[in-house]
Amino acid sequence: MSLNPKRTVAELKEIRALTSDEHGAQRVAWTDTWLKARQWFTDKIKDLPVEHHYDAAGNHWVTLEGKSDKALLLGGHLDSVPNGGWLDGVLDVLAGLEVLRRISAEYSGHPPLTVRLVDWADEEGARFGRSLLGSSAFAGTHSIGADRLRTDKDGVKLEDALRRCRVEIDRFPEAQKEQKNAAAYLELHIEQGPVLERMNLPLGVVLGTKGVERHIITFHGQEAHSGSTPMNARRDALAAAAKLALEIRNIADRHPDSVCTVGSVKTFPGIVTAVVGRCEATLDQRDLNAVILAEMYQDAQQASRKFAAEEHCTVDWSRLWNIEPIPFDAHLVDLCEQSVREISGTSHRMPSGPLHDAAEVSRAGIPTVMMFVQSLKGISHNKIEDTKEEHLEMAVAALDRLASKTMAWIGQRA
Amino acid sequence: MSLNPKRTVAELKEIRALTSDEHGAQRVAWTDTWLKARQWFTDKIKDLPVEHHYDAAGNHWVTLEGKSDKALLLGGHLDSVPNGGWLDGVLDVLAGLEVLRRISAEYSGHPPLTVRLVDWADEEGARFGRSLLGSSAFAGTHSIGADRLRTDKDGVKLEDALRRCRVEIDRFPEAQKEQKNAAAYLELHIEQGPVLERMNLPLGVVLGTKGVERHIITFHGQEAHSGSTPMNARRDALAAAAKLALEIRNIADRHPDSVCTVGSVKTFPGIVTAVVGRCEATLDQRDLNAVILAEMYQDAQQASRKFAAEEHCTVDWSRLWNIEPIPFDAHLVDLCEQSVREISGTSHRMPSGPLHDAAEVSRAGIPTVMMFVQSLKGISHNKIEDTKEEHLEMAVAALDRLASKTMAWIGQRA
Repeated sequence: MSLNPKRTVAELKEIRALTSDEHGAQRVAWTDTWLKARQWFTDKIKDLPVEHHYDAAGNHWVTLEGKSDKALLLGGHLDSVPNGGWLDGVLDVLAGLEVLRRISAEYSGHPPLTVRLVDWADEEGARFGRSLLGSSAFAGTHSIGADRLRTDKDGVKLEDALRRCRVEIDRFPEAQKEQKNAAAYLELHIEQGPVLERMNLPLGVVLGTKGVERHIITFHGQEAHSGSTPMNARRDALAAAAKLALEIRNIADRHPDSVCTVGSVKTFPGIVTAVVGRCEATLDQRDLNAVILAEMYQDAQQASRKFAAEEHCTVDWSRLWNIEPIPFDAHLVDLCEQSVREISGTSHRMPSGPLHDAAEVSRAGIPTVMMFVQSLKGISHNKIEDTKEEHLEMAVAALDRLASKTMAWIGQRA
Repeated sequence: MSLNPKRTVAELKEIRALTSDEHGAQRVAWTDTWLKARQWFTDKIKDLPVEHHYDAAGNHWVTLEGKSDKALLLGGHLDSVPNGGWLDGVLDVLAGLEVLRRISAEYSGHPPLTVRLVDWADEEGARFGRSLLGSSAFAGTHSIGADRLRTDKDGVKLEDALRRCRVEIDRFPEAQKEQKNAAAYLELHIEQGPVLERMNLPLGVVLGTKGVERHIITFHGQEAHSGSTPMNARRDALAAAAKLALEIRNIADRHPDSVCTVGSVKTFPGIVTAVVGRCEATLDQRDLNAVILAEMYQDAQQASRKFAAEEHCTVDWSRLWNIEPIPFDAHLVDLCEQSVREISGTSHRMPSGPLHDAAEVSRAGIPTVMMFVQSLKGISHNKIEDTKEEHLEMAVAALDRLASKTMAWIGQRA
């Protein structure tokens, strides 16, 4: 039985039909629809000569035992955001399944290396606001104390929602056992951005996940009557924030792949007849290079202080979250590039702005790489998320090439 | 009995004690606290030789009949915003009361002209969002159809709240009868802005109320992932709005007394990880000159289209409200200036940014002028609203001078 990428596309449609409604995919982790998707996946593997189990964090491991204990890992996630798309996460798992089938068939169930496919639990963090939950437990970067009491919009606690799915958050550290013998990790994902489409390329090689600095910046001015306060007597907090919202674009443009985003602005009192007395803006900055990221963060702070002074305001910063850049393994990046080039004739190296489970696996010290396939219009986390079927098929074929090359590399290293 | 401005200050403190809590004044129109303030005021006039009644819109008229039917009107409002200050509106009524007492005493209850003091109903519009309610009924510029069904935050309808105070909105037009024989209208008010304090002047002469253009401007871009969308692939609605929020200051600065304010900005989806797909900004523009106001409105529209194009967005405008500039009577402005100069030695002519009941009276064709007294720090609609007591006393004295000069002027014209 040889690789059949068309089967992957058919299976993507099958799970979409099973777990979506008119608003999109509803495979939110720890819900019944997610469990239904996982059951469907379990049915798919029942004819393969594999062992499978759930680890202490709810990650689902499918193991095709090889002659060596050294293991190639392939992974993805079946969970989605609410009203999500048909490809985000699922493509990774189902492409991995097809590659696993090909390897199993090629070696009559006994490959030279062990091959493991993992369906990570709760990549999206859509229900409790904590993404990469399962893979962070695997990596040992979990945050049990902070996460246990997170609640969803109905007030259900994270630990209770997990318990309902037979996962005890206190046992998360046991998931690290799955790291044993892991020699490499591969993950295919839709790009979720417009870069490949704009370059007219089906596939891309991911250099790593960008580091993120995420802050709330608050400018304090003076609320004042819009009719009776002359322009030169104002301390307009919005004006300072507006200058910053524009300046962060200059800060990003100093570096080739940097992004800076002000995604939310809130004005107080926020009424038509008052000068803005207080303005809260969020800032999200990302780059693959830690030095550049630190420089952008400094630049934004400096600019905010300058604008606050110009507008006779004050400013304060509050960090929401940050993570360091996570570069992928240089040799696997080369192998990924070769694979993409063999299938599509050309290739492009790019960082990933969004985070992925691959980042956590890489943090665990396991050589890792990701491959991107083009997203139409760069849209994701939305029911209109889409990729051309021919590109999906090329992606499965390229991942299969990469798996073969990686197995050979692991074999050489052993 | 001669004019006693200190009594006005004492009475201001008396009504503050009666109708405020720890958050400030609570004399919101159509509430029990407002009715209590009106009852207190009614007690104050019971020893004067006056007739008093409520008109069809709930305005309270106190009439000292003179030898001539020609009437000088003095006015203000006892209602406040929630958590309001101790002077806004009340000063006007109580200064008018003191002037009325002086005139009554001077002419033993029979002045040459009729003098009327009016406490307008619901100047602030704090509960139902419709300011100048009573004075617009008086002027015949009411909007009964639109206002009847307005609701407060508890869902109570305006027409029901009025009915509880024995006011039938359908009878509003009858309030126009009160215009009969009105020869001039005078109103004293706190400035509610910082201009007089900055010039170190206690009193100012108001040239008229500025016209207002009030709009919601919506920029439409494209929501996109903050991590995966390159800077040059964005259609950032916030960037266009930020440019406009800054440009409106240049537009205002082209004219000496213009103001332009973006008081509210709302971002959608408004999350830290998404480029802003839609941004709604409010714009409030004011000037005393209708030509300048129209020019500023055009300038802002043109700028918004330019910025939308630069950011690959679209823009649309929706008018919230507008009113034309209302210049006060030129001769009364001169008399007001003389009065202010006699009391304080100097004077300053200025437009009013905020609207006042005087604007509605002027629209009814009655010669009108207002006098401002300095506000400390320019703060109003807040419990810390304040004016030096010596300035309050000077204001009562200047209003009294103005009343005398105006009566003489009316007498000459008759």
